[in-house]
Amino acid sequence: MTGTAAQHDIDSPENLARRRHGQSVLSEIDGHQGEAVIDSLADINPALGHHVAAFSFGDIYDRPGLDPRSRQLVTLGILTALGGCEPQLKVHIGAALNVGISREEITEALLHATVYCGFPRALNATFVAREVFAERDATPAS
Amino acid sequence: MTGTAAQHDIDSPENLARRRHGQSVLSEIDGHQGEAVIDSLADINPALGHHVAAFSFGDIYDRPGLDPRSRQLVTLGILTALGGCEPQLKVHIGAALNVGISREEITEALLHATVYCGFPRALNATFVAREVFAERDATPAS
Amino acid sequence: MTGTAAQHDIDSPENLARRRHGQSVLSEIDGHQGEAVIDSLADINPALGHHVAAFSFGDIYDRPGLDPRSRQLVTLGILTALGGCEPQLKVHIGAALNVGISREEITEALLHATVYCGFPRALNATFVAREVFAERDATPAS
Amino acid sequence: MTGTAAQHDIDSPENLARRRHGQSVLSEIDGHQGEAVIDSLADINPALGHHVAAFSFGDIYDRPGLDPRSRQLVTLGILTALGGCEPQLKVHIGAALNVGISREEITEALLHATVYCGFPRALNATFVAREVFAERDATPAS
Amino acid sequence: MTGTAAQHDIDSPENLARRRHGQSVLSEIDGHQGEAVIDSLADINPALGHHVAAFSFGDIYDRPGLDPRSRQLVTLGILTALGGCEPQLKVHIGAALNVGISREEITEALLHATVYCGFPRALNATFVAREVFAERDATPAS
Amino acid sequence: MTGTAAQHDIDSPENLARRRHGQSVLSEIDGHQGEAVIDSLADINPALGHHVAAFSFGDIYDRPGLDPRSRQLVTLGILTALGGCEPQLKVHIGAALNVGISREEITEALLHATVYCGFPRALNATFVAREVFAERDATPAS
Repeated sequence: MTGTAAQHDIDSPENLARRRHGQSVLSEIDGHQGEAVIDSLADINPALGHHVAAFSFGDIYDRPGLDPRSRQLVTLGILTALGGCEPQLKVHIGAALNVGISREEITEALLHATVYCGFPRALNATFVAREVFAERDATPAS
Repeated sequence: MTGTAAQHDIDSPENLARRRHGQSVLSEIDGHQGEAVIDSLADINPALGHHVAAFSFGDIYDRPGLDPRSRQLVTLGILTALGGCEPQLKVHIGAALNVGISREEITEALLHATVYCGFPRALNATFVAREVFAERDATPAS
Repeated sequence: MTGTAAQHDIDSPENLARRRHGQSVLSEIDGHQGEAVIDSLADINPALGHHVAAFSFGDIYDRPGLDPRSRQLVTLGILTALGGCEPQLKVHIGAALNVGISREEITEALLHATVYCGFPRALNATFVAREVFAERDATPAS
Repeated sequence: MTGTAAQHDIDSPENLARRRHGQSVLSEIDGHQGEAVIDSLADINPALGHHVAAFSFGDIYDRPGLDPRSRQLVTLGILTALGGCEPQLKVHIGAALNVGISREEITEALLHATVYCGFPRALNATFVAREVFAERDATPAS
Repeated sequence: MTGTAAQHDIDSPENLARRRHGQSVLSEIDGHQGEAVIDSLADINPALGHHVAAFSFGDIYDRPGLDPRSRQLVTLGILTALGGCEPQLKVHIGAALNVGISREEITEALLHATVYCGFPRALNATFVAREVFAERDATPAS
Repeated sequence: MTGTAAQHDIDSPENLARRRHGQSVLSEIDGHQGEAVIDSLADINPALGHHVAAFSFGDIYDRPGLDPRSRQLVTLGILTALGGCEPQLKVHIGAALNVGISREEITEALLHATVYCGFPRALNATFVAREVFAERDATPAS
């Protein structure tokens, strides 16, 4: 069916528009780190990269109703609780800084997380935060 | 050792003060639902109830550095991602409303969660939100 | 921005088409149970219901490259491992039957799961399977 | 291959012996609750019931090297951390009492768990413990 | 009891036969990677290695009722959802290829997983798939 | 409020006393590894380090009612089941040895864990145990 084929064609005009909107949101929020994730998927799973942009950032992220700062707080909670998502925590702690959450607020959020998902998850997320802050200190112009 | 005995005595003057401060924060944030959880622990595990109040709400919750609204967003993320924490989600969705997060923001946060922990977790949290909103609609004076 | 507003308008012609395609896939796969989930979201989070249909079933589910039988096996593994997703397991065990996976294959898959996520998760999923099979036996015309 | 067919025949003399040994361990440890779980699987997944007895209790549980009390402490940690395993926690809190862990030790273990997997998981496990203790108080001869 | 001692003696004739059957299934499915895992356990926990072979692959894996392709799809779902199981994902993505699941089907399965356990888990599993495919491309005769 | 400010001041006389007690428990149990974790937090999140000591080890760990050996068994179960907590498993397997749990008991506990959280989690924890034992063999005086 033409409709279906178009819906699954990630380079159809519609999907391209959705993806491009998502990529522009992603660039604002995650900077080069988010784009790097999508680029890294080009060979292995381009459809996954498409949906990271088109769905996550295009359809969902900049919907009115919840501002980026609030979204990043929810995301930090999720990624900390899940565990094993250090690569994503790295990107999203950076995104949190980009949308105006301070370093102090991030570390407080991770301390707060000890109550709800325990000290191990909170510690592992804090180690990622330390790494992100150190990288930012090392390259201030980024 | 006297010091240790005192630290473990949940009714020592120090611990009582920490607990009372926590209980007052809890009442502001969770209303009667939070107090009900602690009361329900009186027979089975009073020390656990003590630490819910003294540590979670006394030591952590109202630390400056992260406001209650931000804390509740992190908590919603964690509880949604963990799964199986519907009792706590019920209390904390109520707390989110109490600290000024709107119903629309809550449902947006749960839609946002689909990206990071999938639709099943987000759906189950949304069903709890529906229950909380319905209860509030049924008893407007609470 | 008009483009963005359209992308977020779940009733735009584009989104309506995506959703309708998803709803038709959903009806084939999950029967009335899947539609019931989306309907149940109409009041609380219509956008979530939209994306269950438009993204999960419209964009992803019937992409060529993985057949429905294979998709349901992956889904059974995920929902069993996550735990706490009994509502979704109920729908998806039904969907597995609908796409031609036999009851024996389902129970074998859950026995297989003991190796990878342990007996508790596998047992809880098996209890849901029992419930689904019993309902089907009680209402053979469904 | 005959060897394989025998290994998969849960009623072969070898498997029957393994299962019977497991059932006898299970009766000692879990009492009637454990047997009830296996019986409940007879219609839906008898092989799963076989392996609960033959593998979990026959091959593993009474291996020398770790005593039942220690095993139950590990199990309580696992089931509390997993979440969503309230049916299994119910059986295993009972088993913990049966192998000589006191009610005080169980509630201390769940308080201890707050540190490692957070208060929500620990609270939900504590609610199950309360239920188990109440049932035992109601039927002292069990 | 002699029966028990024999059941716990991983080198008894019965257990040796179960283990050898499991090892032969493992070699077919996981190739050298699976055997390597068991070998790596020889010093630290030989009983664990025994049961990987005897239980997982001997008792469960080649039971009729679910074919290897279907089993690997369930396993991919579980390991992706669990997170933190990259070592096992590496072995099992290889096993999936060995039992005839194509690279395209594997990446589609991981895209499908975004719906049920979110993008972070699916991304991390995709990164492992990329590594496995790259190793196979580098050593075509393996 | 003075009371609150004091409760949040991690260097108040009360908090210093709670922390020092916790640090002394930590040194006994985790040796230098536990102290190293807290030291590593000094720059990034000193309050988190304070609460690891004051709450986890000062308020909870040496409460009468559950002995250290039992506590470590519960902790091993939790950390194994959570997955992704290899840094903490490393510290706590060492702590288990320190409180008198033997290497054989630790590996038996991890084999036991296969039943409740599956072979992947148990294998990953066993790999950490191997690393801990190897380090101890390499530096016998530690």
